[in-house]
Amino acid sequence: MKTYLECIPCFLRQAIECARLAGLNEEDQKRVIDRVAEQIPKFPLSSSPPEMAQEIHRIVRDVAGSKDPYRAVKEICNQKAAVVYEGLKDIIKKSDDPLYAALTYAIAGNIIDYGIKGAIDVSEELSAIIALLNETIAGQEERIFNYRAFRETLEKSTTILYLGDNAGETFFDRLLIEELLKISEGRKITFAVRGGAVINDALREDADIAGISGIVPVIDNGSDAPGTILEDCSENFVKIFNDADMIISKGQGNFESLSGAGRDIFFLFMAKCEIVTRDMDCSLKDVILFNHAPALRV
Amino acid sequence: MKTYLECIPCFLRQAIECARLAGLNEEDQKRVIDRVAEQIPKFPLSSSPPEMAQEIHRIVRDVAGSKDPYRAVKEICNQKAAVVYEGLKDIIKKSDDPLYAALTYAIAGNIIDYGIKGAIDVSEELSAIIALLNETIAGQEERIFNYRAFRETLEKSTTILYLGDNAGETFFDRLLIEELLKISEGRKITFAVRGGAVINDALREDADIAGISGIVPVIDNGSDAPGTILEDCSENFVKIFNDADMIISKGQGNFESLSGAGRDIFFLFMAKCEIVTRDMDCSLKDVILFNHAPALRV
Repeated sequence: MKTYLECIPCFLRQAIECARLAGLNEEDQKRVIDRVAEQIPKFPLSSSPPEMAQEIHRIVRDVAGSKDPYRAVKEICNQKAAVVYEGLKDIIKKSDDPLYAALTYAIAGNIIDYGIKGAIDVSEELSAIIALLNETIAGQEERIFNYRAFRETLEKSTTILYLGDNAGETFFDRLLIEELLKISEGRKITFAVRGGAVINDALREDADIAGISGIVPVIDNGSDAPGTILEDCSENFVKIFNDADMIISKGQGNFESLSGAGRDIFFLFMAKCEIVTRDMDCSLKDVILFNHAPALRV
Repeated sequence: MKTYLECIPCFLRQAIECARLAGLNEEDQKRVIDRVAEQIPKFPLSSSPPEMAQEIHRIVRDVAGSKDPYRAVKEICNQKAAVVYEGLKDIIKKSDDPLYAALTYAIAGNIIDYGIKGAIDVSEELSAIIALLNETIAGQEERIFNYRAFRETLEKSTTILYLGDNAGETFFDRLLIEELLKISEGRKITFAVRGGAVINDALREDADIAGISGIVPVIDNGSDAPGTILEDCSENFVKIFNDADMIISKGQGNFESLSGAGRDIFFLFMAKCEIVTRDMDCSLKDVILFNHAPALRV
C-alpha cells in the first residue's frame, strides 16, 4: 500500500504516542517529533507506511536510549494472553468448525487492548470481540472474508509461512497454528517474527513464551520494520517467503507493506484506519481475511 | 497559549486541508507537507500555534503561486452571510436583551459552515446553532461565559478594539458592533482585520463588504498570521491595542495568540479542539466569552 498524505500527520501522532509509551519526557518527545519531521521529505508517497514507521521507531529507540523500550508492555500482553489460552483452546475444540473459530480468535488477538485489564476483563472483552466479529463477518464472506478460499488453499498447500504481528497476540496465533497443523498434517508451517524490536511486535522470545517454538519452526525476518518490507528482510526469510505454497499474514502493518507483493497472500487483520478502508474498499473495524491473488486480478 | 505536542500532527493535517482548498494537486500537496515538516524543528513548544500556522499558510500560498488562494471561498461566505443579515438584525432588535442576542449571533457567525449550502439552509443552520448556544451557555455564565463582566466593562469603556476573525463572520460582527454602538454611544470602536491574506480570515475588503467600514474605523494589524501575534503586528495596531479600554477578540486563533497577553481581553469563540479545552478547562464546542484579566489572576 502506498503512503497517503493523511498518513503523514498520523505518523507524527504515532511518534508522540510511542515516545510516551517509552517513558520519554516532553522535551525528549519534542526531540523525537523534530527528528521524525526531518525524515518526512525523504519518504515519497510511493513508499509503504511501515517504511516510515520503521524510521520513526528507530528514532524513538535512539532517543529513549533503549533497544526495546516496549519489552515490559510486551511481557504484560504475554501474561494476560497466557491466562486465557487454555480456555480458548477448549472453546475452539468444541465448536462446529474449529478452523473458523481459531481464525476469529486469531483476529481477536489482534484487536484486544490488554491495557490495564485483569484476566477476567480480558476474558470478558474477548467474548464481546468474538460476538462482534461474527456479526461483522456475516454476509461478507465473498467480499472481504474469503474463508472458503483460505480453507481450499490450506488443504492443497505443503509449506505454509505464517507472519506474526504483536506480542500477546502470539498466543492466539498458536491457537490457529494448532488447527492448521490438524488440517495440513505432515505439512510444514513456519512462524515468522520481526528481526529487531519495534513497538510491541513479536520477537523470537515472544514466540517462545507463547509456545509456538515448541510446535513449528520459528524464523525472524531480519528487519526491524513494523511490517514486512521484503527489501529489508534477510535472504533466508525472502527465500522461505517466495517458496511457501501459502502465506498467512497477520496485522495491518504486514498488509500495508505486502499488499503490493507479486504473490498470493491471505491477509488477516482488522481495518484500523480510514486510509486502509479506502485502499481495501471496506469499513472501519471490518474484519478482513483477504485473499490477495495478483495473478487473478484484471 | 503554548503549542502542545498534539498540535504538531494537527498542523500537518491543516496544511493538507488548506493545500486542497487552494486547489493544489497531490504532488504539490506533498511539497507543502515536506516544507511544513522542515519548519517543525524551528518552532519550540513555547511559541503559540498561530505562529506555526502563519508559516504553514505562507508555504501554501507560495506553492499555490497565489497571494490569496481562498478569495473565492471568502466571497461565497460573504454572499451567504449577507443574505441572512437583515433578518437577524430584526430578530436582535425584538429580543429582550439585544446585546446578549447579538453576542450569540456573533459566535454563531464563527461556527457556521457555509459549505455548499443555500440561503435557506444557512438560515436553518443558524436557528439550530442559536438553540444549541443558548443551551450550552445556560448555567456557565460565571465560569466561561462572563456576560455580566462584558456588559459592565463595555459601559465604562471609551475606546474599544474589536478583533475580527473570518470573512462572512464579519456580517455577524457588524450585528454586534451595531449593538455596542447603541450602548457605548459617543465612544470609539475600531474593527481590526488581518494585514495579509491567510486562510479565510477577514481582510479590509471583507469589512467593507459587510458594511463595517461605513459605521466604525477599520484598521489592519499588519500581520498575515491567523491570529494576533503582537510582535508581528504594525506599530500603529499595537498602539491602538495597548491604548484601548476594552478589547473584544473573536475566534480561536486570536485566543491562542493572545491568551498570554498582559492585558484584559474578552475572548469570544467556540472551543474547537481538545487542546484548547485543556487550556481553558472547558468542553469541546463550549461557547466561550472569557474575561481574560491577568491582573486579577493569582
